[in-house]
Amino acid sequence: MKRFAALLFCTAFIEAAVARAGDDKPRLVPPAKGPIAVAFVLTEGATMIDFAGPWEVFQDVVVDGNQAFRLYTVSDSRASLTISGGMTVVPDYTFDDAPPPRVVVIPAQGGRSPRMLAWIKQMATDGDVVMSVCTGAFKLAMTGVLDGKSATTHHDFYDEFAKRFPKVRLVRGRRFVDSGPKLFTAGGLTSGIDLALHIVELYFGRTIAENTAKYLEYEGQGWVRDRS
Amino acid sequence: MKRFAALLFCTAFIEAAVARAGDDKPRLVPPAKGPIAVAFVLTEGATMIDFAGPWEVFQDVVVDGNQAFRLYTVSDSRASLTISGGMTVVPDYTFDDAPPPRVVVIPAQGGRSPRMLAWIKQMATDGDVVMSVCTGAFKLAMTGVLDGKSATTHHDFYDEFAKRFPKVRLVRGRRFVDSGPKLFTAGGLTSGIDLALHIVELYFGRTIAENTAKYLEYEGQGWVRDRS
Repeated sequence: MKRFAALLFCTAFIEAAVARAGDDKPRLVPPAKGPIAVAFVLTEGATMIDFAGPWEVFQDVVVDGNQAFRLYTVSDSRASLTISGGMTVVPDYTFDDAPPPRVVVIPAQGGRSPRMLAWIKQMATDGDVVMSVCTGAFKLAMTGVLDGKSATTHHDFYDEFAKRFPKVRLVRGRRFVDSGPKLFTAGGLTSGIDLALHIVELYFGRTIAENTAKYLEYEGQGWVRDRS
Repeated sequence: MKRFAALLFCTAFIEAAVARAGDDKPRLVPPAKGPIAVAFVLTEGATMIDFAGPWEVFQDVVVDGNQAFRLYTVSDSRASLTISGGMTVVPDYTFDDAPPPRVVVIPAQGGRSPRMLAWIKQMATDGDVVMSVCTGAFKLAMTGVLDGKSATTHHDFYDEFAKRFPKVRLVRGRRFVDSGPKLFTAGGLTSGIDLALHIVELYFGRTIAENTAKYLEYEGQGWVRDRS
């Protein structure tokens, strides 16, 4: 009887493990207390939807009645920036005084200061997730952390990326690529929404990610389809 | 021979008209010169993706090698605003000094000043398009211009909208609704991307709108599916 109970237990355990493996791989662990800090790297000319898509996804995640993420912008200075299309944004922090984030989002943008690239490189060690969107992948690749890994970018920039970063394995035709344990790269523009939903799933599982997508009225299925 | 040529001409004309009717209905006419001015109404707490989605769509429309739209933000004052999730944005104009727009985008937001509502109401007469996104439909309905017309909003707010605006015919389950010759209302959050693509189609036809969607790597089909 004990053996039968043990067998039942094992079967249930394996089933749960299989279900979990299909659901979240690898699983990220949220902090024991408080929301997950997400830093958006913003410099001159940052592309609106590249940061606004993930921004909206992360801010709409509710777990046990609480907002699961806390968002802020980080730049070279606190001077106001002109975002793509002409919107004026004032950054919250600089690379010298930003609170340590668990997640970093790098949209397409003009900035490429040594301080910015060094900060991004450090976050690829310190944080849980560093994710680029669109040609933000160029900034991430410039730090060297993508060398030897797979990555993607906006479809109009595949050839340029491949030529400029021969040590990175360019992946075409996907919404996003899991580029390493902490590194993720999305395709162009709206692809960042899918990658952000994928990160939500890695932290909190499929149901919370689906709830977020439904709240967003998001119809794209790439965040489920293009999981590694 | 002249009659035959005339017949050929007529046939070609009718075919072109039929093709156009299937393509764009009703057709909006861009200004003879220069880009189409698009004003984004932004006040405290404006929801990021509600304005960022249409912002990205409009800024990415290229016609004959030129950007087809020019974007700016309008608010009660030029004082900096806190957008949903905490981003700081500085408006370009106030309701008193904004250049006259052809298109007005109204995202979900906190503002409801008499000046703002009067300006929106005026633009529903002066412009080509006044479009709300998400609960921005509440602001549009508050001006009275939706009375007797169909409209939609975020799915979580259907009942509240129907109760508060009994003179407006609430439509459920669509990405957007053509609410009248100049009035359009989108559902929640990402639905604004579909409505913006629809507006692009009304100005420039299906091919330009498709090119924009492809550039955006946008996978949603609602902008085609939910046309009236």
